[in-house]
Amino acid sequence: MAKTFTIKRRVQFAETDLASILHFANYYRFMEEVEHSFWRSVGQSVMADHDGAVISWPRVKTGCEYFAPAHFEDELDLVLTLTDLTNRSVSYEIEFLRGQQRLALGRTTAVCCTMDNGELKAVSIPAFLRTPLEEMAQSRKP
Amino acid sequence: MAKTFTIKRRVQFAETDLASILHFANYYRFMEEVEHSFWRSVGQSVMADHDGAVISWPRVKTGCEYFAPAHFEDELDLVLTLTDLTNRSVSYEIEFLRGQQRLALGRTTAVCCTMDNGELKAVSIPAFLRTPLEEMAQSRKP
Amino acid sequence: MAKTFTIKRRVQFAETDLASILHFANYYRFMEEVEHSFWRSVGQSVMADHDGAVISWPRVKTGCEYFAPAHFEDELDLVLTLTDLTNRSVSYEIEFLRGQQRLALGRTTAVCCTMDNGELKAVSIPAFLRTPLEEMAQSRKP
Amino acid sequence: MAKTFTIKRRVQFAETDLASILHFANYYRFMEEVEHSFWRSVGQSVMADHDGAVISWPRVKTGCEYFAPAHFEDELDLVLTLTDLTNRSVSYEIEFLRGQQRLALGRTTAVCCTMDNGELKAVSIPAFLRTPLEEMAQSRKP
Repeated sequence: MAKTFTIKRRVQFAETDLASILHFANYYRFMEEVEHSFWRSVGQSVMADHDGAVISWPRVKTGCEYFAPAHFEDELDLVLTLTDLTNRSVSYEIEFLRGQQRLALGRTTAVCCTMDNGELKAVSIPAFLRTPLEEMAQSRKP
Repeated sequence: MAKTFTIKRRVQFAETDLASILHFANYYRFMEEVEHSFWRSVGQSVMADHDGAVISWPRVKTGCEYFAPAHFEDELDLVLTLTDLTNRSVSYEIEFLRGQQRLALGRTTAVCCTMDNGELKAVSIPAFLRTPLEEMAQSRKP
Repeated sequence: MAKTFTIKRRVQFAETDLASILHFANYYRFMEEVEHSFWRSVGQSVMADHDGAVISWPRVKTGCEYFAPAHFEDELDLVLTLTDLTNRSVSYEIEFLRGQQRLALGRTTAVCCTMDNGELKAVSIPAFLRTPLEEMAQSRKP
Repeated sequence: MAKTFTIKRRVQFAETDLASILHFANYYRFMEEVEHSFWRSVGQSVMADHDGAVISWPRVKTGCEYFAPAHFEDELDLVLTLTDLTNRSVSYEIEFLRGQQRLALGRTTAVCCTMDNGELKAVSIPAFLRTPLEEMAQSRKP
């Protein structure tokens, strides 16, 4: 598995604002999309059935630094890197690139939870989800 | 001026997701709404005309910690506090409260810019915008 | 009960687009907000528990005509009128007013459904939800 | 040019709601995306420079019928068909297909406008934008 996971994502009209740039909150949607694409790329989903429960990954912390604005119809590379993996949580960095230019850097930490009608309970990451995360983490070592 | 500025904001249906909670990216829209309400409360706007240019406040850094989920129709208090003020930038914290419970804590740093068709240029905060910010900062001192 | 139900709703920054106007898709969110406010005003919710099931109102048809653009920070009146009520469905019109000016006219038809994990099944509108709708319909007669 | 123009579009997590389905307002964003993709496919953009002005296409009427819900991670075909072309406006239908199943049918009418800071003025469709629309209209004839 590659050290990073990348998708291309074009900025859509509805995602701009009257400052004519990608609205700052929408970067967080982009972060989510590359993370969910990663899960699909390993044959899983961010919403997974496990032992009769539904596993999901609510965020406990997110953040983003913005270096230069993105505009309508820009096609960005969203580069996902796993930065930390604990018993119950995973952290990623997401680079926003337009060609060689780094427009933004996002960070997100999500906790593995079972969910039931809006109630969330943290659990250990089950093996079938941990394995692809460990492979991604492994590949980062020198 | 009070040390903090607060608005009430109800969680709307379209802002929830299939985990039955307020989607994590939408917290950033809530942060923006209380900031813009603050500007209106002092007779200004986040988009202000100044010397033939339009002033706006693009973000250079945002973040959020999530402690407990918010649900559909929850009425939250969004509490804005000014945490830093420089020549060109302002930083805020935004608490998300449901009654006495703190659901989340957001942070944002915005830079005063003139904008022209999606191009942004940082400038010193003009006096008419600096004054209400200084009053808010002042009121925080013991 | 009044013939119509009205809320005030301000256009937020994130809801504008690079044409500097309220993005056309966001009118549909506004329509939903006034409808859900109506339910709250009669002590109900668009998501209601009934006989161990959850009732909701998925749309089967929506539409909007746009007469003039709405801009950032405009405070609109959203005026909800019940236009049709059948055994299982309700139709509304929603006027978008800025002062006396009619900016848009929306229409929506929703069907009363029980929902279970994304699966929806149409049912007769239960009495506790039908009563406030009939009162609204009644009040429209001359 | 083909009679229709189609893109694939996956339903993202942030686009679902607590009914576990694609939120009805987001269909309108999908409609816009296939329309804008069409413009790119003919080497144009929905925001085009022309004679020192910016041309855009605000909507005057939109609508959608919903036949069956779309869910998270569904990959939909969005099929754009030109249904009417006048001196100043263009109308489209957009089919939402999941495999062979038709989930929804959208309609939109947009008017060719020059825009200046949120002010919109209807104009005749300039030749360089009319040509690809006429080719699409032409190809629909038997």
